[in-house]
Amino acid sequence: MSRSSSSSPVVFYDTTLRDGMQGIEINFTLDDKLAIARMLDELRIDYIEGGFPLANELEAEFFRRIQREKLQHSRIVAFGSTRRPGHRAASDPHITALIEAETPTVIVVGKSWSEHVTSVLGTSLEENLEMIHDSIYTLKQAGREVFFDLEHFFDGYKHDPGYALKALEAGTQAGADCLVLCDTNGGTLPHEVRRIIGELPQDTLAPLGGHFHNDCGTAVANSLDAILAGARHVQGTINGWGERCGNANLCGLIPNVQLKLGLPNSVGDRVSELTTVSRFIAAQANIIPDKRQPFVGSAAFSHKAGQHADVVQKAPHLMEHMDAGEVGNERQILLSALAGKGTILAKLQEYGNFSKNSPEVACLLDLLKKKEAAGYEYEAAEASFDLIIRQAIGSYTPLFGLKNYHLESFKAGDTASKTVGRIFLNLEEHDIMGAAVGIGPVETLDHALRDALTPHFPELAAVELVDYRVRVLNPESHAAAKVRVFITSTNGEDNWNTVGVHENIVEASYQALVDSLEYYYNACVLGRGRATTSPFCR
Amino acid sequence: MSRSSSSSPVVFYDTTLRDGMQGIEINFTLDDKLAIARMLDELRIDYIEGGFPLANELEAEFFRRIQREKLQHSRIVAFGSTRRPGHRAASDPHITALIEAETPTVIVVGKSWSEHVTSVLGTSLEENLEMIHDSIYTLKQAGREVFFDLEHFFDGYKHDPGYALKALEAGTQAGADCLVLCDTNGGTLPHEVRRIIGELPQDTLAPLGGHFHNDCGTAVANSLDAILAGARHVQGTINGWGERCGNANLCGLIPNVQLKLGLPNSVGDRVSELTTVSRFIAAQANIIPDKRQPFVGSAAFSHKAGQHADVVQKAPHLMEHMDAGEVGNERQILLSALAGKGTILAKLQEYGNFSKNSPEVACLLDLLKKKEAAGYEYEAAEASFDLIIRQAIGSYTPLFGLKNYHLESFKAGDTASKTVGRIFLNLEEHDIMGAAVGIGPVETLDHALRDALTPHFPELAAVELVDYRVRVLNPESHAAAKVRVFITSTNGEDNWNTVGVHENIVEASYQALVDSLEYYYNACVLGRGRATTSPFCR
Repeated sequence: MSRSSSSSPVVFYDTTLRDGMQGIEINFTLDDKLAIARMLDELRIDYIEGGFPLANELEAEFFRRIQREKLQHSRIVAFGSTRRPGHRAASDPHITALIEAETPTVIVVGKSWSEHVTSVLGTSLEENLEMIHDSIYTLKQAGREVFFDLEHFFDGYKHDPGYALKALEAGTQAGADCLVLCDTNGGTLPHEVRRIIGELPQDTLAPLGGHFHNDCGTAVANSLDAILAGARHVQGTINGWGERCGNANLCGLIPNVQLKLGLPNSVGDRVSELTTVSRFIAAQANIIPDKRQPFVGSAAFSHKAGQHADVVQKAPHLMEHMDAGEVGNERQILLSALAGKGTILAKLQEYGNFSKNSPEVACLLDLLKKKEAAGYEYEAAEASFDLIIRQAIGSYTPLFGLKNYHLESFKAGDTASKTVGRIFLNLEEHDIMGAAVGIGPVETLDHALRDALTPHFPELAAVELVDYRVRVLNPESHAAAKVRVFITSTNGEDNWNTVGVHENIVEASYQALVDSLEYYYNACVLGRGRATTSPFCR
Repeated sequence: MSRSSSSSPVVFYDTTLRDGMQGIEINFTLDDKLAIARMLDELRIDYIEGGFPLANELEAEFFRRIQREKLQHSRIVAFGSTRRPGHRAASDPHITALIEAETPTVIVVGKSWSEHVTSVLGTSLEENLEMIHDSIYTLKQAGREVFFDLEHFFDGYKHDPGYALKALEAGTQAGADCLVLCDTNGGTLPHEVRRIIGELPQDTLAPLGGHFHNDCGTAVANSLDAILAGARHVQGTINGWGERCGNANLCGLIPNVQLKLGLPNSVGDRVSELTTVSRFIAAQANIIPDKRQPFVGSAAFSHKAGQHADVVQKAPHLMEHMDAGEVGNERQILLSALAGKGTILAKLQEYGNFSKNSPEVACLLDLLKKKEAAGYEYEAAEASFDLIIRQAIGSYTPLFGLKNYHLESFKAGDTASKTVGRIFLNLEEHDIMGAAVGIGPVETLDHALRDALTPHFPELAAVELVDYRVRVLNPESHAAAKVRVFITSTNGEDNWNTVGVHENIVEASYQALVDSLEYYYNACVLGRGRATTSPFCR
């Protein structure tokens, strides 16, 4: 009988903050990493790999800062490698950095493919086994829970099964709490995972785990097959980010384990937070969420207009493999992001006492439909959505009106291009004016707007533009292609997103800029019109 | 013994043009569909599902047009459903539309989940079996190869295995050439696929196929396990597009079958065209290719700078699960898209006789490094890349220089916003001037530029702007965030892409616009400086 009986829980190990950061375009600041760790703790992920403390001061600082957080569930893990050849583990910087991280759990990566030992490490096969044993034993003596990452395990086993087994035994004898079988290069297919794990003498080894990359497009399936073959610890990243094609996607793995296989695990019903977690972390990484992502993507439960739409409503189990709400996602019918009256009502109830029959429900639905038909999208522009709601419930009066703006962009020869702008607004009875010189038209318009407004609303000086994205909505219609602008603003503490849509990129940008200022002033400065506190205005 | 012995070839069936079109944001024109079919034929895909001829005239027109193409390998398939309850197949519009499509192969979708028959079709279980038999039999009598798509087969089998089996038998008895087991709702995991296919009496049934959706993130693994369990026909789409989370990705399935499982199939060594096919079809759909896509994504074989870069060069099998070239992809080292001297040389050789030691190689590498460090990216801007090469080999003189431009964007009250622009260029000795009024600054600049140039270069009147995309490159650096602009242009027949990078969106757009016109004039009108014909200028 294998040690990991089918009733022992599946343990989820997140490596978004380490392996995920190896992915293209993924970068987290220290604050991002702390915010993500808090989010993963809420999700009740068992382990959070925080980083490689030896790498640099920033990585080491994470471990000091995370200690001050009161995580409820997750254990923080420091990542490092086995000691260097020919050194003693107790005094090796790789091992001491792990101890100094003061985490309850550490993970040590070591070689298990014989050719890697001789060609890459440049040491003997015997010395590598010593390095594994010595490193793990020293960390166990220091009172740590120790996981052993067997780098290139599957490739190693395919080339030299005897040596790969010796590496497993060395880890077991040193007291490792888990032997994590890694498919580092990502070339292993599910049937090989089943065969190889099936061949291991699980009864004589420490418990097994799996770490898979998605180079063959099968990382989630590999992890599931590892679990079915006896592993009870699986590593992955949120949104599947990671080197090359990424790691096993926890946003796929968790619902498959909890909702499909029905195996015990500590995330349990918190799986309903998964969509929020996926999108929050995408926003933190400044990556546009993948609409097609299984379970958590905005299109994962979409049905095209008319297509079985009636069957979906009457007998959803015939047309959907599960209820979208179980992972915190929503069914999407037609092209509308927010088709359901229930969603609209739930949203309105954050702002006051409304019931299904309140006229505000129909009014908001109507406003949204018009806006969406015109190309607005509110999933990534919650601050513009807030203003639409305030409009529907009559709690919003624009701070100012536009009389006109004028921007001149010019460039002569090799000198830098510039934009000069002026804007006239009306504020109650009087007209106000602002002017600015900048590089591009959006920055200049933003500065001119603030130049006009800050004498009257000094709080707006705190608002800064941090991101700006543009998409053409209907590239095929050459004549009047609309552009959609998303703007992210900050007051130094919190960020919020707004949207503008127009044929003219300047006008679309103006809308998003005005929404940003109006939102900040209404929601954060005045705090009016909303029953619950805005998450953006603590 | 199962009918599909392990030596019988795996058959690839592409449904990009039908199921793929159900995906969000995927739309193809008739010309797109024809171009994609030609591309899939080059790849030696066995079957191409062309669409649903009964749906509309456009779909039906595809089947008429494709007959005129001389496809070398692929068979075109028309898609339709079983006849209506209570009608005769021979006179049912679903069946006659399939016959009138005049394709060698047809595919008929029918129900195999008993509850779907009674609740959705609203007919008896017996009548549904008649519908299956009658429809397939009639099409066989008409001389067609007939595939039977068993909609919701896996869910049906889980709920009512006896009825699902009866549907398989009805198809077999009617003469179906393949029974395609569909996981229509996408909720089936690989171990269920193995179990269910393993339980079927394969010896008494027509050959089996599989059609999987990616709702659990396991569509490729499901397809592989279906093959290992005895199926020999697998359906999928290029880039995995399709309803909700998409279909099994042929760009993952094909290399896994050809290079990993080593099973016979007709794509064979044409798998080396896969990266080109994936990107070509993404461009056709106007979808930005997924960099992280297994096998064909631009990051699929990437290695971060310094990270094992030396090992990768010396002993690639230790760090890569396969050679990127086998799927027509490239290793990517550092952040440079084109790090290898070999790639640079290969590129240069399209323009003339160059060898490894030609000074042009170092010159181009140097130019590219500078440009990439400044934020330019050429993978999606081959026309700008062409100009860089012409610069490196000295075969390019700019058509004109910029003296200055001036754009005024303004809006007053509720009237439409407008932009007025003028531009001064110098052309050999004299100055020329252009002016335009438009909606936004980019369109206006484009028109002013053309206003100045077309009297001197009348061919440029054919060039039109078809797409425009903007990304902020360094959103975190508030002060001087750079924007990258990609522009797609057309002359009505072919499209080409150019890039511009600057802190000012107007200036970045200007660069991309100028590149577009310079490229068109140099490569297409003059056709100079390049040994081989540009693919954009047939």
